Amino acid sequence: MSTASLSSTFLDRGCFLKSEERLSSLAKQNGNKKYFGRSNTLPFKSLRVSNSKPGQEARVALLGASGYTGAEIIRLLTNHPFFGITVMTADRNAGKSIESVFPHFVTQKDLPTLVSTSDANFSDVDAVFCCLPHGTTQEIIKGLPRRLKIVDLSADFRLRDISEYEEWYGQPHRAPNLQEEAVYGLTEIYREKVRYARLVANPGCYPTSIQLPLIPLIKTNLIEHGNIIIDSKSGVSGAGRGAKVSNLYTELTEGIMSYGVTKHRHVPEIEQGLSDAACSKVTVSFTPHLMPMSRGMQSTIYVQMASGVTIEDLYHQLKVSYENEEFVKLLDKGIVPRTHDVRGSNYCYVNVFPDRIRGRAIIISVIDNLVKGASGQALQNLNIMMGFPERTGLEYLPLFP
Amino acid sequence: MSTASLSSTFLDRGCFLKSEERLSSLAKQNGNKKYFGRSNTLPFKSLRVSNSKPGQEARVALLGASGYTGAEIIRLLTNHPFFGITVMTADRNAGKSIESVFPHFVTQKDLPTLVSTSDANFSDVDAVFCCLPHGTTQEIIKGLPRRLKIVDLSADFRLRDISEYEEWYGQPHRAPNLQEEAVYGLTEIYREKVRYARLVANPGCYPTSIQLPLIPLIKTNLIEHGNIIIDSKSGVSGAGRGAKVSNLYTELTEGIMSYGVTKHRHVPEIEQGLSDAACSKVTVSFTPHLMPMSRGMQSTIYVQMASGVTIEDLYHQLKVSYENEEFVKLLDKGIVPRTHDVRGSNYCYVNVFPDRIRGRAIIISVIDNLVKGASGQALQNLNIMMGFPERTGLEYLPLFP
Amino acid sequence: MSTASLSSTFLDRGCFLKSEERLSSLAKQNGNKKYFGRSNTLPFKSLRVSNSKPGQEARVALLGASGYTGAEIIRLLTNHPFFGITVMTADRNAGKSIESVFPHFVTQKDLPTLVSTSDANFSDVDAVFCCLPHGTTQEIIKGLPRRLKIVDLSADFRLRDISEYEEWYGQPHRAPNLQEEAVYGLTEIYREKVRYARLVANPGCYPTSIQLPLIPLIKTNLIEHGNIIIDSKSGVSGAGRGAKVSNLYTELTEGIMSYGVTKHRHVPEIEQGLSDAACSKVTVSFTPHLMPMSRGMQSTIYVQMASGVTIEDLYHQLKVSYENEEFVKLLDKGIVPRTHDVRGSNYCYVNVFPDRIRGRAIIISVIDNLVKGASGQALQNLNIMMGFPERTGLEYLPLFP
Amino acid sequence: MSTASLSSTFLDRGCFLKSEERLSSLAKQNGNKKYFGRSNTLPFKSLRVSNSKPGQEARVALLGASGYTGAEIIRLLTNHPFFGITVMTADRNAGKSIESVFPHFVTQKDLPTLVSTSDANFSDVDAVFCCLPHGTTQEIIKGLPRRLKIVDLSADFRLRDISEYEEWYGQPHRAPNLQEEAVYGLTEIYREKVRYARLVANPGCYPTSIQLPLIPLIKTNLIEHGNIIIDSKSGVSGAGRGAKVSNLYTELTEGIMSYGVTKHRHVPEIEQGLSDAACSKVTVSFTPHLMPMSRGMQSTIYVQMASGVTIEDLYHQLKVSYENEEFVKLLDKGIVPRTHDVRGSNYCYVNVFPDRIRGRAIIISVIDNLVKGASGQALQNLNIMMGFPERTGLEYLPLFP
Repeated sequence: MSTASLSSTFLDRGCFLKSEERLSSLAKQNGNKKYFGRSNTLPFKSLRVSNSKPGQEARVALLGASGYTGAEIIRLLTNHPFFGITVMTADRNAGKSIESVFPHFVTQKDLPTLVSTSDANFSDVDAVFCCLPHGTTQEIIKGLPRRLKIVDLSADFRLRDISEYEEWYGQPHRAPNLQEEAVYGLTEIYREKVRYARLVANPGCYPTSIQLPLIPLIKTNLIEHGNIIIDSKSGVSGAGRGAKVSNLYTELTEGIMSYGVTKHRHVPEIEQGLSDAACSKVTVSFTPHLMPMSRGMQSTIYVQMASGVTIEDLYHQLKVSYENEEFVKLLDKGIVPRTHDVRGSNYCYVNVFPDRIRGRAIIISVIDNLVKGASGQALQNLNIMMGFPERTGLEYLPLFP
Repeated sequence: MSTASLSSTFLDRGCFLKSEERLSSLAKQNGNKKYFGRSNTLPFKSLRVSNSKPGQEARVALLGASGYTGAEIIRLLTNHPFFGITVMTADRNAGKSIESVFPHFVTQKDLPTLVSTSDANFSDVDAVFCCLPHGTTQEIIKGLPRRLKIVDLSADFRLRDISEYEEWYGQPHRAPNLQEEAVYGLTEIYREKVRYARLVANPGCYPTSIQLPLIPLIKTNLIEHGNIIIDSKSGVSGAGRGAKVSNLYTELTEGIMSYGVTKHRHVPEIEQGLSDAACSKVTVSFTPHLMPMSRGMQSTIYVQMASGVTIEDLYHQLKVSYENEEFVKLLDKGIVPRTHDVRGSNYCYVNVFPDRIRGRAIIISVIDNLVKGASGQALQNLNIMMGFPERTGLEYLPLFP
Repeated sequence: MSTASLSSTFLDRGCFLKSEERLSSLAKQNGNKKYFGRSNTLPFKSLRVSNSKPGQEARVALLGASGYTGAEIIRLLTNHPFFGITVMTADRNAGKSIESVFPHFVTQKDLPTLVSTSDANFSDVDAVFCCLPHGTTQEIIKGLPRRLKIVDLSADFRLRDISEYEEWYGQPHRAPNLQEEAVYGLTEIYREKVRYARLVANPGCYPTSIQLPLIPLIKTNLIEHGNIIIDSKSGVSGAGRGAKVSNLYTELTEGIMSYGVTKHRHVPEIEQGLSDAACSKVTVSFTPHLMPMSRGMQSTIYVQMASGVTIEDLYHQLKVSYENEEFVKLLDKGIVPRTHDVRGSNYCYVNVFPDRIRGRAIIISVIDNLVKGASGQALQNLNIMMGFPERTGLEYLPLFP
Repeated sequence: MSTASLSSTFLDRGCFLKSEERLSSLAKQNGNKKYFGRSNTLPFKSLRVSNSKPGQEARVALLGASGYTGAEIIRLLTNHPFFGITVMTADRNAGKSIESVFPHFVTQKDLPTLVSTSDANFSDVDAVFCCLPHGTTQEIIKGLPRRLKIVDLSADFRLRDISEYEEWYGQPHRAPNLQEEAVYGLTEIYREKVRYARLVANPGCYPTSIQLPLIPLIKTNLIEHGNIIIDSKSGVSGAGRGAKVSNLYTELTEGIMSYGVTKHRHVPEIEQGLSDAACSKVTVSFTPHLMPMSRGMQSTIYVQMASGVTIEDLYHQLKVSYENEEFVKLLDKGIVPRTHDVRGSNYCYVNVFPDRIRGRAIIISVIDNLVKGASGQALQNLNIMMGFPERTGLEYLPLFP
């Protein structure tokens, strides 16, 4: 279904009709380039206000508000015109205010008090962001009312093959039925499935940075499947907010280290996505590195081009695949993507370079692991699931320096 | 003039009338706490759209777009509903796109090409942010059409006493007439003067972090003037984007250093502001420190309370002074302001603590030096000068982690 | 073997004596400035070798080897010619090699395996570095054979007044008799007491950086006691290696925060030392700040000079006090001490600056909190206690960049 | 005095001989594992003293003392028993003390004043470390007396093929005769050539980290030559101390970026070394990344094993190649080398891991780019050239945290 038809579905429900029509025509009149996307719906709170009656705004529950991805959801929703947070859970901090857990929210006095997940009341909730650790998530989501739209940021519903889940996560899958229902939320690739999903498994940060550039190239048979080497570098926030010696400032500043060499749990997720694109089993070399930075992720990907394929072909394909996308940007030829330039934003910057070894290419993609690699993409997905313009609430420019 | 009357002036001109009335009533209806400030005008682009005819949006020229404060102006204006950038200057980068200078703007394809200041055409400009280095700024601003509203981020118009300018900056003042006209733009303190100003001298970062907590306490005679000791810590972006060995990554990471001990050029600005508040000459002890962080500034201020005054009195006064302010937040008692918690935002967090030495108090204030300490406050000022709601475009929450 | 007897054994065997004479004359001949200190003994292993028979080298037990101060002791002793580590304890890591806890020691294959403190065998030990947490240390040291020389790096024996210990540490002192015996090991000030001590309470990092410049100035009545304001900045390693959310990389990078405002546990230690120097109770203002750096500490100290005293007097006194010291360096006038320039070394750099407020001065001192602020000074003390040249094993130059 | 004559003088006078015998036997007696290397000579200044008459110590000229590699040479030589610095050049800082350029040397009062290279007097010099920028170095070294031993840290003599130099450096080689004489100083691989060299071209940092693990594996035909993919990550000090916007703190902290993709000037040096090992032209994929850290370098190398070769074969070969080396350490199986663990030291840590892609392996090596990647290896080379024990002055343990 195209955006247009989606829009009209929405319009049928009468929610945004008036504004959309009016604004759409105005936008055209002004030639305003700041409004984008296929939908002309304006992503501003004013719309909500001008149309809102009690109950029409989408109400969000945030499960696991005391971690970094939870905090990032809050940051993004604060300026979101259509979503309001009505429930926030944090088991160990139940009863506290969010500002006592995250002092940077001290100005947000209208956020709900934290409750334990078991005490959460979902009667005033339309949609859920689930930011809980893998393993416990399956049980909890199984217990949620089926009328709720859910975006799960854990790894618990990402692997279609539940035996693979068991192998990599060391425990049986607790909700195999939900697994069948879950849609993998790599937005730009699976947008149409996301649109009708009730439960979206939000991709991992590494898999997002890797699949976005690779899937179009694999699908079009431009690169070989047998020799894909991925060297990824991640900021520390990807490790979460748990108290671990290995994540102390003193342990990480001013150094770099590989970790989980060939054994990182994002491997099966990456290979699932690439195998789907290839229509055959793809095995990759994947080595993540932990870097002294809070946010940011770069994947440097070394590939063998298919016979006769040139770097221009790769560049052209990525251009075609993403030229209408807001959040995936192919840079001008020769320009190196830098994590600094996407910090705090939902963008993925990509580029492709010829290798010295004949027939090989180097692909570089960068994201902010907490935004496009987690909470930003989650919001992008829920926007779509709710029929809102995809970029709503995601218009933050990168913060540099 | 109160906000109410300003609003009505504005209303008289017919610009925002309709929306304001409608939205104001709607906002009340919804009990929506997200809209704030004395004005009920909604700070969203939709307003512009719904009211805009060609030429009614305020058009901004940005002089000095290739420095950090210039870039920050761009970041803030990108999501500003009433301002559009029509001219950007950068002498050494004239002819280039902004994305070639700041790759994090690669998605902003509708920004104007950089021109040299001398080539800038101000016929399509209503207001100017001047982010040029001190020294050259006076001449340039002198040459601008008088119909333009100007916020100057340099130090060139901050010191009322031009002999003091000469003493600290080592050159005669080139525009003494303009100096008389200039209004010092510490927004929360001089808001009413800013409102009618044509030329605002935007405060320095250190002076902002220091004067915001001290001026109310000095004005109310709660602290002694003779023994104010200020130990400030700044991120490196305060030093600008010039190529200097002393600002290399390798020179600054993992260490701290005082600099300009007792001789920093912000001293006369600080003393001017505090002396004004005290109605007598105030001399302060001021020691800035350079820290291994890009953004952020903390001033730890050690003061002697006036006879009989308690820490509660200080706390209460700051509460009274700032309780209706959006951007200056007195934290709950005992909570320590952290620069992490204002990063990327226009907030100033303040608190006050009893000292071990009887009769003394410790005041801590934190800001993002590039936002409330520079470009954010500049936009706050221009919003006021243009009659826009003060917080428009400044609603970014802090970016943490 | 006690230090005294070790020393005399050495002398009796004529080892040092002869070398000293010979080397001393050679040193003069060569104009070699590298050998320093009152003793001319050469601090190199060769001496040990040429004199050593099994058992004659001083054998060290390191209690608490898995923390940062413990690791720093190991680093320093590795190149120490007279000490060998025979016992290392780490309760939670008992049975492991040190390289499994600290991979940077992977090349040190001759270090002993970690044992639990209760399993430690002290029969092959002459001296002990105790790097255990405060609270447990008193009991453990009480249980050690009295023939051992001990340098305790915890806070457990620093406060002479055991009621003060109880007040600040919230528990009764478990070894008041040992407290009476303990010597406070601020080396440059209490060297002669350290020389004959059996148990040295090694100073805290903040107190070291503060007392070194202040004690000489207080003793000579050059500064007032009533208005000493200390703003200190510390690297994160001072917080130890415990797993705490507040010390995660993501929580600390790119920001600064005050902590323990007026309540830091180093306050009574600082005031004890300054009060001793003043012969009257001194109360200070002390505000520590946590900085995004692993190592390093700066204290910026704001003082009122006594009547008629000038900045030159302060400078001169510090010059006189420290001109023969290896590890405390008064910089040339106007030169700002930077933590970068002492990183990894046992140096304390100091300087003094005139304040803008008449009659006040600003004193800046920097150390590496893990070296002069902990393990380096501990070794300096044990060298003295054992009769070894004070700087032995401490000759590392700062690591910059 | 040339090294040769210095060496023989030493031997003729029986100095080393005697010491070696005595110490060797003592070392055995003591089971002391701290002395290592093929020579048993003790690396301590005492030897110098006991043998020194004026002029017998090796005198070093340091050309280019104001850069980071120059400073690192000073740091290492300060504790070196056989070398004394008699000349230091720094053209722009001529006439200044080194402490005015590098304040961390403030305690080193006996270092010579900086002079311009053209004013340097080499009559009191036995050996030269040349830390000048590439391009100018060839002319300068051509002008030095031939009796001097020289280690050049620039790229100017690393490429045997002068046409390749011209291609990558954009200028003709100015000293082709010297190029023929120059020995490439990758110590562990070319030690015997270094021993008799007069001019050593010290390897680049990337090439050192890459060739050390790869050369033994290529020489023994354990890996394929056609598909070597190298993803390297470097600290910022590798970029030198020049004032460039791109190396400012604000530009680099909290982010990562690739640079010089496929075009970095270390490529021909790497390929020269690997081609020599392979006896055929090897072309590599090499992508360097700039990281927010001062020191440290990791190369993650992805290789195809030769047919029938296993990961065990690779591990075993590296073990055999390096088990007697002091500075190259193969870690225990499964242990990941981290740059943190070699910081400030001359060590290279290496390990090898099986890849997910059958037949491929992942090799990780880490060094401190300023030590083993530059000044440390330079000293290692000069030690060998002068007949001193190889590790003399290089015994610093890594500085962690």
